[in-house]
Amino acid sequence: MDRVTLAVGGGGASTQSFISDIIFSRLGNPLLRKAADAALIDTSLRTAFTTDSFVVRPEFFPGGDIGKIAICGTVNDLLVSGAIPEYISFGLIIPEGYLLTDLERVIDSMAATCEKAGVQVVCGDTKVVERGALDGLIINTSGIGRTVRDWTDYANISAGDKVIITSDAARHGMSVLLARGELGFDGQIESDCAPLNDVFDAARQYAVTFARDATRGGIAAVLNEIAAMCGVGFLMEDEHIKVRDNVRYLCDMLGFDPLSVANEGLAVIIVKEQDAEKALADIRKTANGADAAIAGTVTADGKVVLKTTIGGKRFIEMPRGELLPRIC
Amino acid sequence: MDRVTLAVGGGGASTQSFISDIIFSRLGNPLLRKAADAALIDTSLRTAFTTDSFVVRPEFFPGGDIGKIAICGTVNDLLVSGAIPEYISFGLIIPEGYLLTDLERVIDSMAATCEKAGVQVVCGDTKVVERGALDGLIINTSGIGRTVRDWTDYANISAGDKVIITSDAARHGMSVLLARGELGFDGQIESDCAPLNDVFDAARQYAVTFARDATRGGIAAVLNEIAAMCGVGFLMEDEHIKVRDNVRYLCDMLGFDPLSVANEGLAVIIVKEQDAEKALADIRKTANGADAAIAGTVTADGKVVLKTTIGGKRFIEMPRGELLPRIC
Repeated sequence: MDRVTLAVGGGGASTQSFISDIIFSRLGNPLLRKAADAALIDTSLRTAFTTDSFVVRPEFFPGGDIGKIAICGTVNDLLVSGAIPEYISFGLIIPEGYLLTDLERVIDSMAATCEKAGVQVVCGDTKVVERGALDGLIINTSGIGRTVRDWTDYANISAGDKVIITSDAARHGMSVLLARGELGFDGQIESDCAPLNDVFDAARQYAVTFARDATRGGIAAVLNEIAAMCGVGFLMEDEHIKVRDNVRYLCDMLGFDPLSVANEGLAVIIVKEQDAEKALADIRKTANGADAAIAGTVTADGKVVLKTTIGGKRFIEMPRGELLPRIC
Repeated sequence: MDRVTLAVGGGGASTQSFISDIIFSRLGNPLLRKAADAALIDTSLRTAFTTDSFVVRPEFFPGGDIGKIAICGTVNDLLVSGAIPEYISFGLIIPEGYLLTDLERVIDSMAATCEKAGVQVVCGDTKVVERGALDGLIINTSGIGRTVRDWTDYANISAGDKVIITSDAARHGMSVLLARGELGFDGQIESDCAPLNDVFDAARQYAVTFARDATRGGIAAVLNEIAAMCGVGFLMEDEHIKVRDNVRYLCDMLGFDPLSVANEGLAVIIVKEQDAEKALADIRKTANGADAAIAGTVTADGKVVLKTTIGGKRFIEMPRGELLPRIC
């Protein structure tokens, strides 16, 4: 068999051999291999629970693939909520005829990313749909983490808090767009796709009030969502929001605001002013936070404002319209 | 807006209003409305965790729809593992242009089923894919439950245990097949799709050794999987495996073995012999277990055998090939 057949999703003998040959050999651990209807796991009394589906096209892009992103996205959602990621479930939706070598590559990538992020895949499900009904792989992952901080409460944010942006912006969205090969020119940009355990192991030592990873809708969506939820504003400084030259060039050329473009390895961390410099110093010692910067301040006026490098000010708008479809 | 646009999946303003207008109004509760990257939930120290994706076509069928099945499937996976279902996540994958009234109907159905099953939807994600890339809705749900029994250990099953089948077989698969309208004749069969809380509230009082719901691959897949995992066999009695007349007629006509057809409201519960009659009596008092029967016995010889109504014996084979695609 070199392509996925409908029988793989049927629940019978083909499903069983697919699970043991393709899945268990890569993601297997005692809990997953038990093949129970539910995995029985040890949890703390306070647990973080999250879910995300991934439909990125193309499925392979510089710096990552749909398997890596499916683990990173869910791991990062747990980390920003103040939890230590522990357990992952996956739901694979595969079009009939999908190349088995591609699928193996995706699952290898999931396994490697789980290893890096310190999580175990403990349950999963595979469905196969008829040829023509779906144009590529879809992966859903849900995640469970042990809550050690609660960074999900907007009410904890107050004016004067500092905004740390942990990396340079817009790399993932531009990477995927370029990888589509529809722009009429060559070149590639590496996605920032990464599990941010190292960054949050550092941040957790400090007085963080809120955190979020800036995926779909980018930094602009995160800041505006926070403003809408709790009434605070932001004064951001363009000179401290890093964008790599090739990314900025591509954004300018295509009319994208880098602040509205998706990232997969960038978090917005809001910290009490007195801890901001210390937190930043520790975050900058990590591999994924080496380019972190304090890029703004929480204000009381409910407006999300950018101070430009030439000293002017403009609103950072909530992204509208369809942005880029299927980048994450 | 009467159809889902790509912008709904973009992470910006349209996503926000979709979430509040379509999702929160139906599934909302304090945890979900918090709109955090992860929901912080109270768990016990021993937790059941499961996931499933749903791709049933047509999306609406007699007795259910993709929303109802997405909740039932995950709730039942928790119940059969010995847990009390508590929290649900959802991942919606929607094709661009999907009718909003249909989507609302599906989400209403999810909400009604959650109410019935006593679970809360605490986190979710919505993705929209371009027209033509996907032929209908896909829903993933993951579930978390409080483990009060451990019914996931094959090693607990031993020869002499009794097999309770909680309902009549093959209704879901035949319902969906008939609803496709491709058979050239009319008629409808009601799916058995249901959350089995009542059945398992009853079963939990007794010495259950193992339980599983018989979805894809039907009862035949469940019995053969158990046999393969731990070496026991089964002697099942055809006269105690109920199949409704219209379901049996359709199966006969189309060449399906009712034992291999999917159910969405039927569980196989293995109970110690001394508790079997008492457990059966209590299960039969429930709405979803009214037609339960002791339909077989665990044997030591590793073979899955059916004693037919005329006294012969045949093997119940592991279903092979593609069975029915996209019925659950």
